[in-house]
Amino acid sequence: MINVLFAALPERWVTYEAPLTKAFNDLGLDVDLRIDFAPHEVDYIVYAPNSPLQDFTPYTRCKAVLNLWAGVENIISNPTLTQPLARMVDHGLSQGMREWVTGHALRHHLGMDLHIKGQDGEWRDYVPPLADDRRVTVLGLGELGMACAKALHGLGFPVTGWSRTQKEAEGITCLCGEEGLGKALSTADILVLLLPNTAATENLIDADALAAMPKGAFLINPGRGPLIDDEALLAALDTGQIAHATLDVFRVEPLPVDHPFWAHPNVTVTPHIASETRPSSASQIVAENVRRSENGEPLRFLADRSAGY
Amino acid sequence: MINVLFAALPERWVTYEAPLTKAFNDLGLDVDLRIDFAPHEVDYIVYAPNSPLQDFTPYTRCKAVLNLWAGVENIISNPTLTQPLARMVDHGLSQGMREWVTGHALRHHLGMDLHIKGQDGEWRDYVPPLADDRRVTVLGLGELGMACAKALHGLGFPVTGWSRTQKEAEGITCLCGEEGLGKALSTADILVLLLPNTAATENLIDADALAAMPKGAFLINPGRGPLIDDEALLAALDTGQIAHATLDVFRVEPLPVDHPFWAHPNVTVTPHIASETRPSSASQIVAENVRRSENGEPLRFLADRSAGY
Repeated sequence: MINVLFAALPERWVTYEAPLTKAFNDLGLDVDLRIDFAPHEVDYIVYAPNSPLQDFTPYTRCKAVLNLWAGVENIISNPTLTQPLARMVDHGLSQGMREWVTGHALRHHLGMDLHIKGQDGEWRDYVPPLADDRRVTVLGLGELGMACAKALHGLGFPVTGWSRTQKEAEGITCLCGEEGLGKALSTADILVLLLPNTAATENLIDADALAAMPKGAFLINPGRGPLIDDEALLAALDTGQIAHATLDVFRVEPLPVDHPFWAHPNVTVTPHIASETRPSSASQIVAENVRRSENGEPLRFLADRSAGY
Repeated sequence: MINVLFAALPERWVTYEAPLTKAFNDLGLDVDLRIDFAPHEVDYIVYAPNSPLQDFTPYTRCKAVLNLWAGVENIISNPTLTQPLARMVDHGLSQGMREWVTGHALRHHLGMDLHIKGQDGEWRDYVPPLADDRRVTVLGLGELGMACAKALHGLGFPVTGWSRTQKEAEGITCLCGEEGLGKALSTADILVLLLPNTAATENLIDADALAAMPKGAFLINPGRGPLIDDEALLAALDTGQIAHATLDVFRVEPLPVDHPFWAHPNVTVTPHIASETRPSSASQIVAENVRRSENGEPLRFLADRSAGY
């Protein structure tokens, strides 16, 4: 019998109990899945970083913490966490992100808001350029960033990707390093942020970075709130250096009602929906990692504590 | 010397003179391109259906009429037209259509309008299903419809296509005929209209067709205005049978200010911009057809008068 503790907010238990049970059964694992084990009895923790569980010290028998979220910044520096930590990388997460990013990139490319908001009888026959003539840069070429870069390339956009370490992908200009960043920003008619939140990426999109982009560029942030210096972005929106920003993530969520992003005519706030873990596919990832661990195989999507994600 | 008459509105001549001249030169054709030949001197007519030229009788030497538009419904039944007629099928036309259709399909799929119009401080965290769970049907699998069907399939949508004659495309459920139409409509969570405007397609989307679609479906029409029975659509929007219609083409264009589509909260009118012929690529298509005709080769994209397109 393998004891698996589910440590997340109560509404998640409602969503996850059935698909997790099914996923363990499908792999023939003899699992007791609960929300109320005594800490020293727990073999694995299925975890959401907003769970009340923040002290891992008493979980002396726990072999791994299996995160339900893609982001691990709220747990990876927890000093009580000595067990291996796996990130969530599920099909739904990257597919959902690909859909959201592609949709909003096309929205800005096509100038859709002009028509969505302009149903007043005026025939505004603005014809946008083809995607061929609209350069997109994706910062971050992890699972999510790469999925988005490939989808945008498939629609005809010239795509540049930038990442900490050099990556390769057919049809995509892959850059890395400080010099690569400057080049990636200079061709970003549309800039998509899909970097992890680390000390190195905090405020990466500051006044200098925004000034390095083409005049009138679009910014899309489905990554992490702290990647952007909010004040610098507001200033760049006011001058028209940035034509519009569509932001899904923020330093504080839900974004406070009095935050200037809500009121700015050239900002679209979306409520952290760009990518959501889907219970059925996420449960399969969790169950597969329990199976691997029990068989002495390496975990998939193990977080790298030295890199911070 | 080949005499080519350019017959379109004057503003088109400004746009097309240089790219057409270049395209003829690039193929080594000795062309005299003008807007003012005597009719009996003309070898080819580069044509837009809204040109003042509507009587082809005096063009006794003309070997072909080369249309600048994808649609030929305003010329194909002209009884004075006895010459071969070629439609315009250019890269920009199908790429632009693919971008517009994919963008608006994703817009409706993601529920973007809720956020674009709802920047009031409320955190509306609606998470849409994945594209896997949103079925799209494309009516019409010509160059444009097929390009859209493939792009939507590439983003993960289950795509059904329907056409007059049976087509084949990997990953796309291809249907035809009356029975196929019923099935195609019944799975259309999003319906895209890309049929030509013929006697057989006029009012195809009537009350019965709309009722055959899933409740709360989305309708996207970048094809031709007369495909839809406007009154039936307005009734289906009022009951919620159709959640939203995004319409780019109309029976009368520009759409009159007092047309109820403008005022309906669940209709987005766009001003016939889904796909626009791009002068440089279109000029290459025209020049290539002149070359073929001069060499006795068959024209590309010859319109089929019996089918009406």
